[in-house]
Amino acid sequence: MLPRPMRVALAQINTTIGEFAGNAAKVAEWTARAADRGAELVLFPELTLCGYPPGDLIEVTDFVAEGEETLHELARKLKGGPVALVGYVESSPHATGLGRSNSLAWIEGGAVRVVGRKSLLPNYDVFDERRYFDPAEQPTLVERGGVKLGLSICEDLWNDERFWPRRLYPLDPIAQLRGKGATWVVNASASPFEHGKPKLRRAIIAAAAQHHGVGVVYCNLVGGNDSLVFDGHSMVVDASGRLLAHARGFEEELLVADLPDAASASRGHATDVPAENDHEQVIQALVLGLRDYMKKTGFERAVVGLSGGIDSALVAVVATRAVGAANVLGVAMPSRFTSSASDEDAATLARRLGIGFEVIPIEPIVDSLRRALSPLLGGDHRGIADENLQARVRGVLLMAISNKVGHLVLSTGNKSELSVGYCTLYGDMCGGLSVIGDVPKTLVNRLADHVNRAGEVIPRRTIDRAPTAELRENQKDEDSLPPYPLLDRVLHDLVVERLGVKEQSARGSAPGVVRDVRRMLFASEYKRRQAAPVLKVTPKAFGSGWRFPIAQRFGRRG
Amino acid sequence: MLPRPMRVALAQINTTIGEFAGNAAKVAEWTARAADRGAELVLFPELTLCGYPPGDLIEVTDFVAEGEETLHELARKLKGGPVALVGYVESSPHATGLGRSNSLAWIEGGAVRVVGRKSLLPNYDVFDERRYFDPAEQPTLVERGGVKLGLSICEDLWNDERFWPRRLYPLDPIAQLRGKGATWVVNASASPFEHGKPKLRRAIIAAAAQHHGVGVVYCNLVGGNDSLVFDGHSMVVDASGRLLAHARGFEEELLVADLPDAASASRGHATDVPAENDHEQVIQALVLGLRDYMKKTGFERAVVGLSGGIDSALVAVVATRAVGAANVLGVAMPSRFTSSASDEDAATLARRLGIGFEVIPIEPIVDSLRRALSPLLGGDHRGIADENLQARVRGVLLMAISNKVGHLVLSTGNKSELSVGYCTLYGDMCGGLSVIGDVPKTLVNRLADHVNRAGEVIPRRTIDRAPTAELRENQKDEDSLPPYPLLDRVLHDLVVERLGVKEQSARGSAPGVVRDVRRMLFASEYKRRQAAPVLKVTPKAFGSGWRFPIAQRFGRRG
Repeated sequence: MLPRPMRVALAQINTTIGEFAGNAAKVAEWTARAADRGAELVLFPELTLCGYPPGDLIEVTDFVAEGEETLHELARKLKGGPVALVGYVESSPHATGLGRSNSLAWIEGGAVRVVGRKSLLPNYDVFDERRYFDPAEQPTLVERGGVKLGLSICEDLWNDERFWPRRLYPLDPIAQLRGKGATWVVNASASPFEHGKPKLRRAIIAAAAQHHGVGVVYCNLVGGNDSLVFDGHSMVVDASGRLLAHARGFEEELLVADLPDAASASRGHATDVPAENDHEQVIQALVLGLRDYMKKTGFERAVVGLSGGIDSALVAVVATRAVGAANVLGVAMPSRFTSSASDEDAATLARRLGIGFEVIPIEPIVDSLRRALSPLLGGDHRGIADENLQARVRGVLLMAISNKVGHLVLSTGNKSELSVGYCTLYGDMCGGLSVIGDVPKTLVNRLADHVNRAGEVIPRRTIDRAPTAELRENQKDEDSLPPYPLLDRVLHDLVVERLGVKEQSARGSAPGVVRDVRRMLFASEYKRRQAAPVLKVTPKAFGSGWRFPIAQRFGRRG
Repeated sequence: MLPRPMRVALAQINTTIGEFAGNAAKVAEWTARAADRGAELVLFPELTLCGYPPGDLIEVTDFVAEGEETLHELARKLKGGPVALVGYVESSPHATGLGRSNSLAWIEGGAVRVVGRKSLLPNYDVFDERRYFDPAEQPTLVERGGVKLGLSICEDLWNDERFWPRRLYPLDPIAQLRGKGATWVVNASASPFEHGKPKLRRAIIAAAAQHHGVGVVYCNLVGGNDSLVFDGHSMVVDASGRLLAHARGFEEELLVADLPDAASASRGHATDVPAENDHEQVIQALVLGLRDYMKKTGFERAVVGLSGGIDSALVAVVATRAVGAANVLGVAMPSRFTSSASDEDAATLARRLGIGFEVIPIEPIVDSLRRALSPLLGGDHRGIADENLQARVRGVLLMAISNKVGHLVLSTGNKSELSVGYCTLYGDMCGGLSVIGDVPKTLVNRLADHVNRAGEVIPRRTIDRAPTAELRENQKDEDSLPPYPLLDRVLHDLVVERLGVKEQSARGSAPGVVRDVRRMLFASEYKRRQAAPVLKVTPKAFGSGWRFPIAQRFGRRG
């Protein structure tokens, strides 16, 4: 039994990879804030000191050394403060294995007193933790003021057989901790956002708490790191699975909560789940992902090619929310195939957003290319070569602006296009970051409607027009592709669920369409290999979680 | 004791990923050839039926199913032939874990009789096998004609503590097999080429054989698959570590050998190691990698931008060896900064190789871009923006040729440039395949000399001139970079060995230079993320084995 509730703080902070000094300074600052709020323990996200995910930096010898030095220096600085649980890469002396753990240091009284290590190492999708870490043999338990606290890290909490068709790991560290008498489990996490995941995550954590009969103190990372956006949404759940406290999404927050005695769950006061809108969350994730990519790579301004279409319009909206209208430049680059509607809509959008706007006609440049090529290729200016010339000239222009005035070029292609290769390599695919490359076209449409819910920002005509690349006369996307609602359904089943033709046809998709789409998907792998990093908002984004060979024949025949 | 030596065949074949029917047909054909040679057992490379490495195709439900169907069909066809050991992805009914193994089927009498499973799953560098497979709990032993044969797959043989600073795995399946009485171990392998690796591999296998006192029948894959080139060099080594038989590198071969009784090692007749030249092997690897990439993605012809420099010259030589002079087009794209030496050398090289050759001056196109941009960017045509315009126009021209006439564009940048970002994204980085992107500049020079050893092909002046990008007046690479011998040494220590600044300075590199190079390396990560696939010829190539974040601050300060 507790003599009094234990007050804990969850420091949902935004770390930067490899910024040891900065991350440690943040830990010290937030620990002081937690002390001011009366917390006796403060929990930080996974791999606090080096940031997450550090990738192969972990294999650089002085990266791990700098992290461990930073940890011990930090511990000395925190003397006299509350207990701080700080994540770091721990080197181990074992002669077998990788010799590194994903660890959580219990800092108390100016030193690291206990170290907890991650047991379950995710090695799927974007995660490569078996590449970097040895798994813990046993989870760690700490007794404090009569409470037995189990230490766990992210995936350790995600092995509930009721949520997954197949249990990935034979061990369950939460069950092990419960078996040792833990009444509360702390979890330092770096769990990336996906469309709908905040809700799912709450359900999983509540179910785990209830199933094992332990309270869970869950601190998630917040912030963007390349393709991944960590959404925060830290929480405290009691042993009956009720939500006692909840942090906001997509921003830093110090969440303070009093832990009741988990054995008598009724003593916790449940809080309401905050109102949420799935579409707003996706936009917030894109905004945070873009803002942090720019901040962490040193860009202040962004440039986006405005075609008058819905994709570039949505990207401009996201960019404006991310870095402010004054830091966004829209550039229209009309050709002879650009309709007046496109020109007008691009200008209208820029005016409504208040961003900079320039127009650069590309026809003279494309003509100079056609002239230079005609001795070799002849004078017929139709077909894919000529269409791509136009897209590539636009890419060159945007990159020149970037090189000259330092704007980050935003790639504007959506996931549906990228999936089937309906995009030009080194053309519209140019850019430092693909903002909506994981957003299917049908979701782009819904997000545009969401943006307009309180008043039209994206011109109605932009949303309603039939999608077109405007690279030749009267071109429409649906001349080359199935209608987007059908395409997106098939793509979801192929890309996210990895279903075969039979399984998809059992879901009602015509086998011929599935085969066609799959052929386009695999045949365009070479383009995606050279795509800009894509902000991940679905369970399966192109990028580090998508590892298909280029030279392969499966599904390539009719 | 053996009543007679067992005759085995090693079918060193070139498989195509996902080409189940084609790979199975090849197995049937080579099994018949082995039977003709009197073999009673024929061993194929790792994951024979689906090809290696299949990557995330393994997660597509009907991919694994098609492989297993193909296996059983094949087994029926092989009835009456010798035993065939064929690699495939095996689905397992276990409720925990991934439910898949990297397996080797023992096909005999028209059916799969025994299955061996891989115990050690490499999950470093380009390998992700923990992502796809569960490890075997026990290796498999088969008794045949009085001989106990252990079944092993690739990595199972590579855990010798004497070769590695740290043992990755606690188990040694070869020791386990020896403990069960195996006198010979077969190993189905897919071991990619690296500069110097054929020699290393022979040493490792001989040492393992000798250490455990077992003979080894080692069949390696041959052929290119995206970035990886498998070099073959299959072999039979007796229990004393002596090489009894040896297949060629870089081509298919059926190697037939009689296995003496391993217990009396002296009965084997040692063969000599064939004469080898490290530089010739690197070129053979590049040739095979390029040829197979083209064959397996359906390209017949290649186009390369010829600058008159050594990098594009070497790429043209490799392309000519890969697909023949008639299928290679060189394009010179001079600007006002291109020297007459460059123009002449490009033409001379093309003439000597007998490849097609075209000249497209880029000045008028660059001028049209400058004019279009000057209202926005002003009329000053110096600096990085203007330099990149030239490189990007060349990229657009090559891609237009590719789009129009179907040539694969070869990217010509070397590893040193790619490491420090001395290259233009969407410019000289354009291309479907980066032929020498894993070849450091100093090795490019040595390979050029090697190419010329029997008579000058690459103009002497091309090799001797100071490297220059010719994007502004009197530009030299060494204006921006340390001299290449120094740069390449530091890069090797950083990229391949992942050493920190202290360790490098202990090796004699000035800490200031190391820090500068490391800053350039990490700051240009965003370019490499969008690079073409690079043919891997060193222990650490950019691409799937190089996983560094872009937005990170480690080593970015001075």
